Amino acid sequence: VVRRIEELGFRPHLLSEGGRTVIGFMGDETKSMQSTFAAMSGVESVVMSRKPYRVACREFKAEGTIIRVGDIEIGANRVILMAGPCAVESRSMLMEVAHAVKEAGAKILRGGAYKPRTSPYSFKGLREKGLEILAEAREKTGLAIITEAMSIQDVKLVSQYADILQIGARNMQNFALLEEAGNIKKPVLLKRGMMATLEELLMAAEYILSNGNQQVMLCERGIRTFERYTRNTLDIVSVPLLKDLTHLPVIVDPSHGTGVRGLVKPASRAAVAAGADGLLIEVHPNPDEALSDGPQSLCPEDFRNLVDEVKKIARAVGREI
Amino acid sequence: VVRRIEELGFRPHLLSEGGRTVIGFMGDETKSMQSTFAAMSGVESVVMSRKPYRVACREFKAEGTIIRVGDIEIGANRVILMAGPCAVESRSMLMEVAHAVKEAGAKILRGGAYKPRTSPYSFKGLREKGLEILAEAREKTGLAIITEAMSIQDVKLVSQYADILQIGARNMQNFALLEEAGNIKKPVLLKRGMMATLEELLMAAEYILSNGNQQVMLCERGIRTFERYTRNTLDIVSVPLLKDLTHLPVIVDPSHGTGVRGLVKPASRAAVAAGADGLLIEVHPNPDEALSDGPQSLCPEDFRNLVDEVKKIARAVGREI
Amino acid sequence: VVRRIEELGFRPHLLSEGGRTVIGFMGDETKSMQSTFAAMSGVESVVMSRKPYRVACREFKAEGTIIRVGDIEIGANRVILMAGPCAVESRSMLMEVAHAVKEAGAKILRGGAYKPRTSPYSFKGLREKGLEILAEAREKTGLAIITEAMSIQDVKLVSQYADILQIGARNMQNFALLEEAGNIKKPVLLKRGMMATLEELLMAAEYILSNGNQQVMLCERGIRTFERYTRNTLDIVSVPLLKDLTHLPVIVDPSHGTGVRGLVKPASRAAVAAGADGLLIEVHPNPDEALSDGPQSLCPEDFRNLVDEVKKIARAVGREI
Amino acid sequence: VVRRIEELGFRPHLLSEGGRTVIGFMGDETKSMQSTFAAMSGVESVVMSRKPYRVACREFKAEGTIIRVGDIEIGANRVILMAGPCAVESRSMLMEVAHAVKEAGAKILRGGAYKPRTSPYSFKGLREKGLEILAEAREKTGLAIITEAMSIQDVKLVSQYADILQIGARNMQNFALLEEAGNIKKPVLLKRGMMATLEELLMAAEYILSNGNQQVMLCERGIRTFERYTRNTLDIVSVPLLKDLTHLPVIVDPSHGTGVRGLVKPASRAAVAAGADGLLIEVHPNPDEALSDGPQSLCPEDFRNLVDEVKKIARAVGREI
Repeated sequence: VVRRIEELGFRPHLLSEGGRTVIGFMGDETKSMQSTFAAMSGVESVVMSRKPYRVACREFKAEGTIIRVGDIEIGANRVILMAGPCAVESRSMLMEVAHAVKEAGAKILRGGAYKPRTSPYSFKGLREKGLEILAEAREKTGLAIITEAMSIQDVKLVSQYADILQIGARNMQNFALLEEAGNIKKPVLLKRGMMATLEELLMAAEYILSNGNQQVMLCERGIRTFERYTRNTLDIVSVPLLKDLTHLPVIVDPSHGTGVRGLVKPASRAAVAAGADGLLIEVHPNPDEALSDGPQSLCPEDFRNLVDEVKKIARAVGREI
Repeated sequence: VVRRIEELGFRPHLLSEGGRTVIGFMGDETKSMQSTFAAMSGVESVVMSRKPYRVACREFKAEGTIIRVGDIEIGANRVILMAGPCAVESRSMLMEVAHAVKEAGAKILRGGAYKPRTSPYSFKGLREKGLEILAEAREKTGLAIITEAMSIQDVKLVSQYADILQIGARNMQNFALLEEAGNIKKPVLLKRGMMATLEELLMAAEYILSNGNQQVMLCERGIRTFERYTRNTLDIVSVPLLKDLTHLPVIVDPSHGTGVRGLVKPASRAAVAAGADGLLIEVHPNPDEALSDGPQSLCPEDFRNLVDEVKKIARAVGREI
Repeated sequence: VVRRIEELGFRPHLLSEGGRTVIGFMGDETKSMQSTFAAMSGVESVVMSRKPYRVACREFKAEGTIIRVGDIEIGANRVILMAGPCAVESRSMLMEVAHAVKEAGAKILRGGAYKPRTSPYSFKGLREKGLEILAEAREKTGLAIITEAMSIQDVKLVSQYADILQIGARNMQNFALLEEAGNIKKPVLLKRGMMATLEELLMAAEYILSNGNQQVMLCERGIRTFERYTRNTLDIVSVPLLKDLTHLPVIVDPSHGTGVRGLVKPASRAAVAAGADGLLIEVHPNPDEALSDGPQSLCPEDFRNLVDEVKKIARAVGREI
Repeated sequence: VVRRIEELGFRPHLLSEGGRTVIGFMGDETKSMQSTFAAMSGVESVVMSRKPYRVACREFKAEGTIIRVGDIEIGANRVILMAGPCAVESRSMLMEVAHAVKEAGAKILRGGAYKPRTSPYSFKGLREKGLEILAEAREKTGLAIITEAMSIQDVKLVSQYADILQIGARNMQNFALLEEAGNIKKPVLLKRGMMATLEELLMAAEYILSNGNQQVMLCERGIRTFERYTRNTLDIVSVPLLKDLTHLPVIVDPSHGTGVRGLVKPASRAAVAAGADGLLIEVHPNPDEALSDGPQSLCPEDFRNLVDEVKKIARAVGREI
């Protein structure tokens, strides 16, 4: 089948699961082509999709994708908590947060080593030193690590240290970076651009998927609106909508999504009630002294309270934390 | 105190509750004025607010406002369900829906008699005939009635029939209508404009409050964004934010807020998880034949399922339906 | 023909010009209906439009509508300048501005007697007193008068004094007000809502047109965007687009459209270069002391300079001031 | 002075012009620091800026920056026309367009060799082959070349061929790419992001400037709004606003800015009337067969008409083409 697709001048994408192989490609949507393939031996069915994101869409793969990081399953019944500071500021600070969030129930530690900043004069992160500290925190706590790569240069290095590679909102349409993320073997968390439509987000995911990396999760982190009381408007309804459009897991970031500490807890409850597969939350031992994003960071105690509340909601929708 | 405020050339707003009277007015925020009033007998405290919505803000009144409609309390522990068709299309259809939503747990029946329509050529509602049908449904079912007034001409008539007067999103800054709504004795549900900030919504509420009607509830019904899969983007985080900024109850309309039937249920769960005091939901006996808003209306059975799911969430946040 | 349309249950709109009569109505777009009318004697042609704004669209009337106010023609070759203060603050101030703008080349005097304000506590205009002052200024200077009606209650009174009735941006979808404006015999300037699409603007115009008033001009006054340096983003390209979609004249308001005094002149040049039929500009004898919109008002001298510059642009596009 | 700045722990940016040297750096804005430097010999004045874009702002450099490409001056009196196809599709097609736009008055040839595409399945350009064709066109016609680099990998190669390196709207906050563009010796045209504020655009320019490349021009190319008749809303008033905020030249792209062929001409007139230093226009020998952006491309004859009209506007504002 693959050879035939290539003969026709198209590029096939393979996806194996449970003894069945799904082969996707973008071609002419003619009836004759459909019957050509339907008639080939070993072909169970031919599905034609009108969605421009061929591999990301539910029609391509009906069951939800589950991404495994060690024994953590993202996209399964358990809602996964990812927490930690916006930026890795120092070894001692990261260790303190790591132990606190682990104890509270987080499975994955977040922390920026490379920080995208609007101003060239702002703190840009500890870079490789930050990655080393993250790796040490993983060793000490057993938490998995998620951290951002900002450019194609960093992808290789970051993916050596990280368990999940994050692509930030400003880079959602950095196509060279997306392609590079498609070449690695690690899961990728792709953040929605600040003003991107869901179709654009799915097309960005398609860049990674079509390059060969099937382990993609999407992250709603708020869009820009006219509201001035909040930093962004968290689009919570995007969660059930994305779950309908795509088989990929959907994570919500209520910290960037609101930009206001007091709103992180109710936004987290709402996100889980809406069906989110995970939460990405900024926690800092001393939010008022954070080098970046202090106003939206929780202290460890607030995070523990959040976990308690979110657990109740998870149970109410038949899931667990 | 009131006389002194008037002598100074300002207009006082009185609000009595539990034996205490709050008097608000907009004046110069000078220290001397503060001490003038603080020294008067019978004055417990003088609060200065920087918010431009003087009467609507939490600083003016710390406890949440509870609006009573018969024995229904809006803004108290119970999450209030308001449900019914977009437009009152006929007597038989409304009766059918009214019985169905009552049985499922709704306390208030919604239904448009006057319909604002983008096109002058669209169905504009049954008008007074629609109001009569609504009143009959109230009599038959015991449900309270909420319906919209579109212009100052209609306010008097609509408020004779309705238990709650609705002001629609397109009229959020129709200041003449807001002032008229401030003159009636019935509760008002004020919908957020499609592209209004929360401050603009609160300033619109202030028009009603400062005209003498303290029974105002706010309604989040989705804002316009660049997303094309949904009709609007429901700003669920506005719920906890509004609850923080104002003492007024906050209702969520997930039907207009999403415009997509399949999203009404998860959006409702999220709204209650975020702290909404009520839900306003479109239910139609046969959504595919609705004269307006069919694609976002639920059939009665879907509504019953929604109530079941929302009940679990309400319990998880310590409330009931 | 009219009788036949009515027999079919539709509502005809008549428009006579140059001995020819155009009859518009909204009906089923079936072939049979088209041939029914095409066959009737006296019918030159039957045009079917897919645009939801049947009467406003170019297909309905190919030549541009010219609105006559005394000997002023709006929509013809001459670019019409409308200028004056945001609000009529006093008799002396209005007379001063009226003489100054007349001398500089304005044909129409603007000035608000009824002011829509976001806050119920802001100055709301001199109301009927303001209308009287405007009428006096007309008598003294020969300028025509444009002023706003904010509610259906005011339309009758305002249209007794004004030569052109203005409907403000916040009332663009106040359908009761639009219908009332359709009942008067005076020209109407309809401002685009702050976040309205052009189709919504044209549908709002359709409310007035379909109610019987054909003298409608549209006004671009800036839309809300994420930009914070300006009050609004003036959508200058809407001018040629509207001129293509509709036969109605198009006016530009660079004062509200930018909110910044220093940008009014370049924005005016651009608007005329793009094909605007007129400009609506705020001029105040002492902008820094204006009761409203001071930061965007020009002093009379700046307005004279603006007229000089705009004249050169008008000539470059084959028009005059 | 430079040494002293470095001793204080800051990073100085030097800019020499006309025998005077401007030294910028980001430091504490204390009075004591101001007097420290004011007292040093050879220091004419110390300017403190509150703008976060220290080097880009007008306070840093009062005279407009003029960028020289051969004998072309961008930012001087002459309005510079840059024209050509969206993508370099073939050698013969590019030569045909190049000769046509040169004859009509263009000074610079545009053409994409690397194309950013929302879908991974769309045509991505001829890449290095495209660059070679562009270089050949320059040799044959004498036109300078502007073309886009999409990733840090391409910058070196693209800047070997191009006279001006373009950074696209989707990459406006690709900070690694901006830094790389700051390292080259070629002028850079930086396009405004589809939903970026002007401050964000200027901060992105600051990344390039603060890295050492002072030859930056900004390009307004339309922002995303709710309008559906156009692809983008061209923010023409951003031109005089940017000219006020920064010393950098400002170019307008009316092709992407509107997305509609019939609007490119009036938008170009408006842009020049507003003060644009140049226009970037898509021209294709056969727009209806273009591999990308056909609906917004002009045929050579339309482009000649556009130049004629724009010349008249340029003269009306005291400039030439």
